[in-house]
Amino acid sequence: MGVSLPRKELFDLPEGVIYLDGNSLGVLPKSVPERLAQVTRDEWGKELIRGWNTAKWMDQPARVGDKLGRLIGAPQGSVMIGDTLTIKVFQGLAASLQMRPDRKVILSDTGNFPTDLYMAEGLIDTIGKGHALQLAKPEAVLDAIDDSVAVVMLTQVDYRTGRMHDMAAITRRAHKVGAVMLWDLAHSAGALEVDIAGSNCEFAVGCTYKYLNGGPGAPAFIYVRPDLIGTIKPTLAGWLGHDAPFAFETGYRPAPSIGRMRVGTPPVLQTSALEAALDVWEGVDMADLRAASVALCEVFIKQVGARCPSLTLASPRDAAQRGSQVSFAFPDGYAVMAALIERGVIGDFRAPDIMRFGFTPLYIDRNDVIAAVDILADIMDRKTWKDPKYHVKQAVT
Amino acid sequence: MGVSLPRKELFDLPEGVIYLDGNSLGVLPKSVPERLAQVTRDEWGKELIRGWNTAKWMDQPARVGDKLGRLIGAPQGSVMIGDTLTIKVFQGLAASLQMRPDRKVILSDTGNFPTDLYMAEGLIDTIGKGHALQLAKPEAVLDAIDDSVAVVMLTQVDYRTGRMHDMAAITRRAHKVGAVMLWDLAHSAGALEVDIAGSNCEFAVGCTYKYLNGGPGAPAFIYVRPDLIGTIKPTLAGWLGHDAPFAFETGYRPAPSIGRMRVGTPPVLQTSALEAALDVWEGVDMADLRAASVALCEVFIKQVGARCPSLTLASPRDAAQRGSQVSFAFPDGYAVMAALIERGVIGDFRAPDIMRFGFTPLYIDRNDVIAAVDILADIMDRKTWKDPKYHVKQAVT
Repeated sequence: MGVSLPRKELFDLPEGVIYLDGNSLGVLPKSVPERLAQVTRDEWGKELIRGWNTAKWMDQPARVGDKLGRLIGAPQGSVMIGDTLTIKVFQGLAASLQMRPDRKVILSDTGNFPTDLYMAEGLIDTIGKGHALQLAKPEAVLDAIDDSVAVVMLTQVDYRTGRMHDMAAITRRAHKVGAVMLWDLAHSAGALEVDIAGSNCEFAVGCTYKYLNGGPGAPAFIYVRPDLIGTIKPTLAGWLGHDAPFAFETGYRPAPSIGRMRVGTPPVLQTSALEAALDVWEGVDMADLRAASVALCEVFIKQVGARCPSLTLASPRDAAQRGSQVSFAFPDGYAVMAALIERGVIGDFRAPDIMRFGFTPLYIDRNDVIAAVDILADIMDRKTWKDPKYHVKQAVT
Repeated sequence: MGVSLPRKELFDLPEGVIYLDGNSLGVLPKSVPERLAQVTRDEWGKELIRGWNTAKWMDQPARVGDKLGRLIGAPQGSVMIGDTLTIKVFQGLAASLQMRPDRKVILSDTGNFPTDLYMAEGLIDTIGKGHALQLAKPEAVLDAIDDSVAVVMLTQVDYRTGRMHDMAAITRRAHKVGAVMLWDLAHSAGALEVDIAGSNCEFAVGCTYKYLNGGPGAPAFIYVRPDLIGTIKPTLAGWLGHDAPFAFETGYRPAPSIGRMRVGTPPVLQTSALEAALDVWEGVDMADLRAASVALCEVFIKQVGARCPSLTLASPRDAAQRGSQVSFAFPDGYAVMAALIERGVIGDFRAPDIMRFGFTPLYIDRNDVIAAVDILADIMDRKTWKDPKYHVKQAVT
């Protein structure tokens, strides 16, 4: 058993808000502002260029990668921080296609987050050798994996519905037919137990601004199975992935380590915020986290089901097939969410009709869930959401 | 005439240091820590996910791009902030090759910063259609541009020597033979007058942590000539470059604007630091800046030449052919630089024998330069650099 949950005292939770959107942007850990002030005033301000050595900025992406690795079951030296999830998808996908030069299919599902699909499109166009992106329905992916597939690229937990793929079973199937497996852990890392090494997948990528509370635009990560690291020829062959970046050679020689997945100069301020944010995980047992997450989701599903009959559960009812979010469909879901937010219950909305509620056991407890349902039930009972003001669309939702 | 230079009062200059390395990492503008605290505590902490709307995080990369655009002569709506310079090189290069499908040569020079060359290698391997990276000597580039060249990719100011290419002449030559022109402004933006629109080049990229003082790992920028923006099919087809990212379509449709050069979720904290850092440019006339830069470099070259005869000028003697840095070669340059740094004069060293000194007229004045030369002359006269302690190599230099 690890430390008990929640650990609200470690977070700067805003007054009057029940925050059920940690699956989109995690809350501010209390340790972060001080760390950011320190890296800015003391390291950048006083050390200046020397900070790359004296403040260990150069080692930071690997160091923070190792710190994150524990949360997803990745061994030391197999995770690198940097760039955005979108870029890391491109890296993983390009490396996957290199490994299967005679195959042309990238298989994904219609529930994958669009940026993963778009990056596959962009890569396919750039290679220009007749690769194709094939999309199956999430439920049909397992059966769609055949020996035409070069790489199976899936997000473990569906961003809309919270539906969770069986990572072990899909990876086994991919390997059985000789395909490479690339997992996107955007809604998994820090949300549930992930056994990335145990899955035996070749690549995994993820972001750190959701359940890992790294802050808006926090850098992403990429995992490479240790036996493959030395074999990858990086498409994004940036200087900091070079074996000797400060030799300034004109030709590229990748670092022998996971360092070859580095690209350009890392975002030191943003990575420092993430490094501090990861401290809240100290002593947290991921099995405890998962149990707490399931308990919160179950309370929410049961109570909303009983009290808001016009909402339709859009997530799997079986907790074993669900991540750490619960979605309900409702034709005027946008307006209901707007009304909820006005009353301090923050979830979000995904077109056309999905209200998403994320459950983050580090700072959300059963009382929060019950209070949120009370407000949701009140809005549905009184039809508050019909007020035209809740129907005005914002640029970003 | 703009405001008078320097503007030391706007910077948090460390005591006892003469900082001649703003060409590597700019100093901390005083406005940055407060802005970072605000974006962290008030925006992330209190607005949480709403910050994308309420704090205008979503518009930030374009807004900051416009703010930066003035400093390089780029019109509104032609510059986008994001990622790293390394990634932006890849974007610009991929777009350039798309424009010349029947040509196979990427022409650069041996003085280009390695990451630009490495990214070209990675892209060439990924495309796998027989493209080749050809390198000319910097002085020979103009003559090497012929009609086999798809794209000329050059860094305007050589990172080692400070030698400056003639942007207008090279771009004219590239266009004359039907090649695309991609400029890397890493050592130009904020260092000298750049007339990017006047040059008529198709693409330009640059970083913001050098002369623009955006902080360690600050995001990069890309300029696209306005008439081309609508024609580019982004290779890095990330969701935030989509015409309607929040429609979550499965197929990619690029935004009609410079927005299509966005890739993933932008680094909000880091971009906020940059946005604040750019305030120091308000009212600065770039012609004044250039004049001040030339004056500082001239004093340095003359005095070092007179007082340190064993050092060899490695930069052009003619100011018109030089950026805002001065390099001197010396076999034991590493040790001399280490001795300088110990005495508070911070420049840097580039293998095998180059000592670099950057001159940033926003916070460096003639007295600083003279004081730096005094210390350098003392180190050379007394051969202080022979002490073995100055010969111990650090991991990063």
